Amino acid sequence: MDVGALIFDVFGTVVDWRGGIIREGQALADSRDGLSGVDWAAFADAWRGRYQPSLQRVRSGEQPWTNLDGLHRASLEELLAEFGVAAAVDEADREHLVGAWHRLDPWSDSVAGLERLKRRYIIAPLSNGNVALLVNMAKRAGLPWDLVLSAELVRHYKPDPETYLSAPGLLGLRPDQVMLVAAHLDDLAAARSVGLRTGYVRRPDEWGPGGTAPEPGADDQLDVVVNSLSELADHLGT
Amino acid sequence: MDVGALIFDVFGTVVDWRGGIIREGQALADSRDGLSGVDWAAFADAWRGRYQPSLQRVRSGEQPWTNLDGLHRASLEELLAEFGVAAAVDEADREHLVGAWHRLDPWSDSVAGLERLKRRYIIAPLSNGNVALLVNMAKRAGLPWDLVLSAELVRHYKPDPETYLSAPGLLGLRPDQVMLVAAHLDDLAAARSVGLRTGYVRRPDEWGPGGTAPEPGADDQLDVVVNSLSELADHLGT
Repeated sequence: MDVGALIFDVFGTVVDWRGGIIREGQALADSRDGLSGVDWAAFADAWRGRYQPSLQRVRSGEQPWTNLDGLHRASLEELLAEFGVAAAVDEADREHLVGAWHRLDPWSDSVAGLERLKRRYIIAPLSNGNVALLVNMAKRAGLPWDLVLSAELVRHYKPDPETYLSAPGLLGLRPDQVMLVAAHLDDLAAARSVGLRTGYVRRPDEWGPGGTAPEPGADDQLDVVVNSLSELADHLGT
Repeated sequence: MDVGALIFDVFGTVVDWRGGIIREGQALADSRDGLSGVDWAAFADAWRGRYQPSLQRVRSGEQPWTNLDGLHRASLEELLAEFGVAAAVDEADREHLVGAWHRLDPWSDSVAGLERLKRRYIIAPLSNGNVALLVNMAKRAGLPWDLVLSAELVRHYKPDPETYLSAPGLLGLRPDQVMLVAAHLDDLAAARSVGLRTGYVRRPDEWGPGGTAPEPGADDQLDVVVNSLSELADHLGT
């Protein structure tokens, strides 16, 4: 493989979105009246559950381009009503909760793995998260990206091909010189279909501790399968 | 000032384009026949002299969007003929010379200054250079950008307002929360006209050792005037 750049899915692959949303929700509940009854694990799962449908409304053209902060905000409004706590969460708290997606913690191997990979490769997120979200997250978590690539730059959400192809296009590389690293087989399949290399990282804890990661088969045609970004660095010899 | 991000002009402000092109040209001449007579300082100045006219052809719509590598390549073809050395420089060498703009050295204060500024601010280039050029330059020179912003992302060259406004737009900031840092008063004036803060850094050696930097006046309405990026860090208290 003649790979020059590694691009990373972020939510679930590099950072623990579920643990982060639970932590932020509980912290808010501890300092506000009327939120003690909320199950924040269920809240996090429900918020993420609205993610793909909201992206699909934009991909299909039903909704004009809206960045992920905007989609998260709209989903939050619905969820607060669904959980019966709309009256307990004011405007400032709603903005704070949307910002929780900017303050997610990395998996324990992410920063060290990325630092090793950066020595030999260009490294960047390629996320449906908007640029501000990804930059704020990187500064807080210490993710050492060389640049930030985002669906927002091309106004196409993954798995639209435009999103994946923006990486080789902007980096002056061929698609097969770019590897998408992700914990999600559908994301990798879409990247492979437009010519990118693929690296699968198992993240069994994405949906909570003690879970299991989907096991890829030969049909997935993955270039690399690893259990951590440190193992990816081992595999790629850096 | 409530500034959250510092964005930097690159050629002349962060890196020494003239010294770099001279160095690369001389290195090529040392390993090839037929190039011993070229004055590489004159060559560098002539190449840069074609920069603004080439940008203007794109800004005006006379020429469709072409990234800076493409514009540099077209200017190079003309220059090689003008200097009478077209026959001595083959296709691979032409690509190598265009790539010289990816391999420019930073001014001596740039890396240390940026590292200090990064502790408190989001830092990014905002250059007419294309993304690949800026990423390759940063990895080689150790420029610790948080993200890479480029005219290429919005397909508008500075001083078009779209280029400057892309920074606050993508970072989720107001224009007055973003400061352009540049060694060129016209660049700063254009940024100020759309609401950005401005920091002028004197770079007297941009056009060769022993030069002088233009001295700003009150009309320039600059927020900060410094002699190096380290002095900018001093000034901004980081």
